Amino acid sequence: MPQARDAGSGRGVNRRQLLLGGAAAGLGAAAAIGADFALASRDRASSTSAADADAITGSDAVPFHGPHQAGVPTVPQAHTAFIGLDLAPSTSRDGLRRMMRILTDDAARLTQGVAALADSEPELAIAPARLTVTFGFGPGLVARAGGTAPGWLAPLPVFSIDQLEDAWSGGDLLIEIASDDPVTVAHTARMLLKDARRFATVRWRQDGFRRARGTERSGTTMRNLFGQVDGTVNPVPGTEDFDSVVWVTDGWLAGGTGLVIRRIRMTLDTWDELDRVGREASIGRTLSNGAPLTGANETDEPDFAATGTAGFPVIPDFAHMRRARGDGTERIYRRSYNYDLPPSGDGISESGLIFASYQADVTAQFVPIQRRLDELDLLNQWTIPIGSAVFAIPPGCESGGYIGEGLLK
Amino acid sequence: MPQARDAGSGRGVNRRQLLLGGAAAGLGAAAAIGADFALASRDRASSTSAADADAITGSDAVPFHGPHQAGVPTVPQAHTAFIGLDLAPSTSRDGLRRMMRILTDDAARLTQGVAALADSEPELAIAPARLTVTFGFGPGLVARAGGTAPGWLAPLPVFSIDQLEDAWSGGDLLIEIASDDPVTVAHTARMLLKDARRFATVRWRQDGFRRARGTERSGTTMRNLFGQVDGTVNPVPGTEDFDSVVWVTDGWLAGGTGLVIRRIRMTLDTWDELDRVGREASIGRTLSNGAPLTGANETDEPDFAATGTAGFPVIPDFAHMRRARGDGTERIYRRSYNYDLPPSGDGISESGLIFASYQADVTAQFVPIQRRLDELDLLNQWTIPIGSAVFAIPPGCESGGYIGEGLLK
Repeated sequence: MPQARDAGSGRGVNRRQLLLGGAAAGLGAAAAIGADFALASRDRASSTSAADADAITGSDAVPFHGPHQAGVPTVPQAHTAFIGLDLAPSTSRDGLRRMMRILTDDAARLTQGVAALADSEPELAIAPARLTVTFGFGPGLVARAGGTAPGWLAPLPVFSIDQLEDAWSGGDLLIEIASDDPVTVAHTARMLLKDARRFATVRWRQDGFRRARGTERSGTTMRNLFGQVDGTVNPVPGTEDFDSVVWVTDGWLAGGTGLVIRRIRMTLDTWDELDRVGREASIGRTLSNGAPLTGANETDEPDFAATGTAGFPVIPDFAHMRRARGDGTERIYRRSYNYDLPPSGDGISESGLIFASYQADVTAQFVPIQRRLDELDLLNQWTIPIGSAVFAIPPGCESGGYIGEGLLK
Repeated sequence: MPQARDAGSGRGVNRRQLLLGGAAAGLGAAAAIGADFALASRDRASSTSAADADAITGSDAVPFHGPHQAGVPTVPQAHTAFIGLDLAPSTSRDGLRRMMRILTDDAARLTQGVAALADSEPELAIAPARLTVTFGFGPGLVARAGGTAPGWLAPLPVFSIDQLEDAWSGGDLLIEIASDDPVTVAHTARMLLKDARRFATVRWRQDGFRRARGTERSGTTMRNLFGQVDGTVNPVPGTEDFDSVVWVTDGWLAGGTGLVIRRIRMTLDTWDELDRVGREASIGRTLSNGAPLTGANETDEPDFAATGTAGFPVIPDFAHMRRARGDGTERIYRRSYNYDLPPSGDGISESGLIFASYQADVTAQFVPIQRRLDELDLLNQWTIPIGSAVFAIPPGCESGGYIGEGLLK
């Protein structure tokens, strides 16, 4: 696996071929498959393709082991599947430990481009494309383990705007699988769920996407399907600021975090009735580049006191940004994804946002923000929360360990 | 639009910035948005990302106008949405013409990275990422137009393996939207369906994926979710061979083609009971690199006469490849996609293949192959056709024209 991880940093065709060639001797079958994969179809007639000059990025790998789980501070990949599972009634504390040992082993291999043990399709495993697998524990799992849950590990308070559906809410175990490649997400989900099925059943699965890798310059803030720049004021991973917002510091969750997933349906048809001025007022930012209505650039600090010619605030009282910000004391790290499903009935779309936020204390950080938005936020007119779940994301583990060992050992 | 198309060939950040800068003067708001988009967040703190060194490929554009519709000979993009629509009872021949003029205009703009007229989210329109929009006419549309349908434009014969569901079958109008970027697919689908809704309603939508752009070397044959190399023996776009297989040569469809879409559910759970030898025998190719069981490399010509030590054929009589090939006279061009949906009940996956094949004459080319597979194909044990549709894909059009003008003018 060390070789495979090294290969992950190799960019460009020649370096990758060299690395794969070098790794093949040590890694056996899986790596041999990889080399074959890399060299396959070299001589094939290739029709007009813009991709010929691209760097080959499928072998890029994100380290699995470490103090924090990957997939939280990782620059968001293009695709994700959030999968919520219910524990089988028979799954004991020992069963939980066995399950997490197996799933951790799968994740440690697959994220490095190595087939899982008894992988049924090893050829699909060799292009991690920055694959991360992140596990989360719901209240039911912590109770089953006989552990102490943080106070915030519970369903969120009821908000007046909620129209929650069981089909998108709750769950004992979360597996989030994210990669720049959708085939890798599909194969990884299947391998992990095959190994989890003795212990748990799938309750829901939410697939989400952002711009493909390479579409935009790295670091570009995502746009949601309203067309809005979404996620500007986010702590930056790797900074002390991010650490203080995100990571829990004590107990078995130290080095972990709290995750809130909210499935938010966007009523795009009524949104369409709104003109650009109305759209910009609802959020408090321009549509063109996401700048606050009082600024010119996306990251300009908004001037909430600024008033227009009529004396009204330039950023309206009901603007989403003003309501979300409050006095700025409550902060969260957002890592959301779009969803877009086939429409039903006479509709033309079934779209929205899989809102995902990470914070050390859900009650102290997320809930006050959501309360403000529940009370007053113009955007509520075009958004309906239809799913909600809270998970404790355990810390990472070192090689030989497993995710959740602080709770289960 | 010429500028936008030129920009599509620009690769690498500096050249793209120059092109966008140069284009902004001529293109007005949309291009200005584009430049803004390209330059946005330049100064933002960028956290650890493997993508920084990547070429930015979002502006790559595939020409819309020409003798054939794009999206058929185009190297398959990573994502597609096949959308089947039913015409409203009130849609007349004149209505069809209006509809196709509007949809053609939308497609001509959006594929070049230019917002559609009255685009509600123009900022989502500026990264085509090789976007193509391909229109197809079902039997109902040709009848409504008072046109003459080719004999093959009808539901396929009934095959014994079929378990077809209305929810995935038939349709009067097909809109296929394909791009390397999933956000672009979502936005394009919404814009086109908004403009189509006066004339037609969505009957089904099938979203599919392949490897992300950049994951693999260009020209690599795709693998399906069985892990099989799928699509080796395909005519190569741009060759006379391809032209003779795919393009219709007479009537209003001259320069067009016939499309068969079959939704094929894969029963991956029983597939898992099969070992690698069994899997390779079922298809007639190795799993490692897709070589025929009688060869070493993917594109080696299979030796169907070769026998093993026991005197049995090396490529079994029931192997998918042998059955599909027949005597090699019937040929089709395949351009299929994987699908993977949330599972239902106690399942862990709901996966399969959106099989798509293009041929000048569906009856003469596709049907005999499918008959052979229906009679005998070991792969039938793990595949269930659950959807089926046939469309005539009209030829392309020149600037100022519209798709379907040969039928509707």
